[in-house]
Amino acid sequence: MVERRRPDTLFWVDPASVGSDRLKLSPEESHHLLHVHRAKAGTPFQAIDGEGSYFECVLESTERRAAIGRIVGRREGVGELARTIVALVGLPASGDVEQVVAHGVPLGVSAFDFVVCERSGRGALKAQRLSRLGRIARAGLKQSLRTRLPEIRSSGSLGEALRHLPSGLRFAADPEGGEPAMALVRSSEDPVTLAVGPPGGFASEERRLLQAEHFSVISLGPSRLTTETAALALISLARNSLR
Amino acid sequence: MVERRRPDTLFWVDPASVGSDRLKLSPEESHHLLHVHRAKAGTPFQAIDGEGSYFECVLESTERRAAIGRIVGRREGVGELARTIVALVGLPASGDVEQVVAHGVPLGVSAFDFVVCERSGRGALKAQRLSRLGRIARAGLKQSLRTRLPEIRSSGSLGEALRHLPSGLRFAADPEGGEPAMALVRSSEDPVTLAVGPPGGFASEERRLLQAEHFSVISLGPSRLTTETAALALISLARNSLR
Repeated sequence: MVERRRPDTLFWVDPASVGSDRLKLSPEESHHLLHVHRAKAGTPFQAIDGEGSYFECVLESTERRAAIGRIVGRREGVGELARTIVALVGLPASGDVEQVVAHGVPLGVSAFDFVVCERSGRGALKAQRLSRLGRIARAGLKQSLRTRLPEIRSSGSLGEALRHLPSGLRFAADPEGGEPAMALVRSSEDPVTLAVGPPGGFASEERRLLQAEHFSVISLGPSRLTTETAALALISLARNSLR
Repeated sequence: MVERRRPDTLFWVDPASVGSDRLKLSPEESHHLLHVHRAKAGTPFQAIDGEGSYFECVLESTERRAAIGRIVGRREGVGELARTIVALVGLPASGDVEQVVAHGVPLGVSAFDFVVCERSGRGALKAQRLSRLGRIARAGLKQSLRTRLPEIRSSGSLGEALRHLPSGLRFAADPEGGEPAMALVRSSEDPVTLAVGPPGGFASEERRLLQAEHFSVISLGPSRLTTETAALALISLARNSLR
């Protein structure tokens, strides 16, 4: 039998299409595997279900343009951090929201909430926009070899966003924030929730709300960062150094 | 006299146009101050020279469409980190280079070198592209309230890039890198040089070169990051936590 080279990419599989020893790709993913990567019966490929499962497969057959793979290996949590990272980001302009998702997914964020703040100057993201962000997140997940798809929400207010947070560490970045982030290195794999203000920053009532909910208000340094740069910096710290 | 409101932005001034007690803005910056912000004689404004000086000024007069400001205060190093950060980034696609500059300048990078690596698959950035990046850097400097304009280079090889580095800490991010970045927190304000591979990563000869030049090879975590996301994550760590 000819040795078939495994495509260096992950394919997406709906959890409902995974059986005990076989899985079936969607028509779109099948097209990608069969026509872009020219896979034939016997070609190995890798799939993720967005819920933390990673599958090593071998292409077995195609059935009405859907690729059927035999599952030869299965692992949980591949590419995932030990900690949960929730990012509350004061709603900025649309292009900036997309950048936060595009970089934040590979960096390991578990949930994004683009929160309408007093200074956001716009309403919550609608279904169509959220579904576009979902596509960016899926692409980022595949490209970064993660396996668990982050949730993406858009709360109508900070109060609403604060209602359903995990326990654990909480940090809010604020230009007037007290101690610099570098002072906050601790030893823990606790979940961490991050909050970054919208363009113009959190309003004073919002700052009070964050403090009441036990967020440590920290400074990211001497220069002024945009919402999206601050979000990416804080996510990077949560990924690699805030403990 | 009418109280004039100070524009919440910095204006750029050529160091050669700064005298002992007066400075003169370029026609472009003058237009911005006089027409966009509608400044009149007596309006306070802030200027930076890109070499670390920050000036508090009061608009005094205009002379052939150039705004003349009286200098009423002067400070050095406003918005600048205590440490120097040099970022060597394996040359990625053009849009990605721009993102690294757009986020990296507010995050405090002192010098960027977009290095042609074995896997870059393209030549060094030419003058026109570097000058476009210079404009992005200037905009980022003003928006972030920094005062020292980073250098932007594009070396033809990693060997060339390594020839003129500051002493101090050196970190290279590599997907196969050893210890995770979080283990590297140290106490120092030494200059730090960061290296991130191009799409596809550093080639083995390049890795050997980095190790010979005392770079600690570190991992940024379990998922695969693009060049630009890895660069931003590593810069964020250097800004706030690698010591």
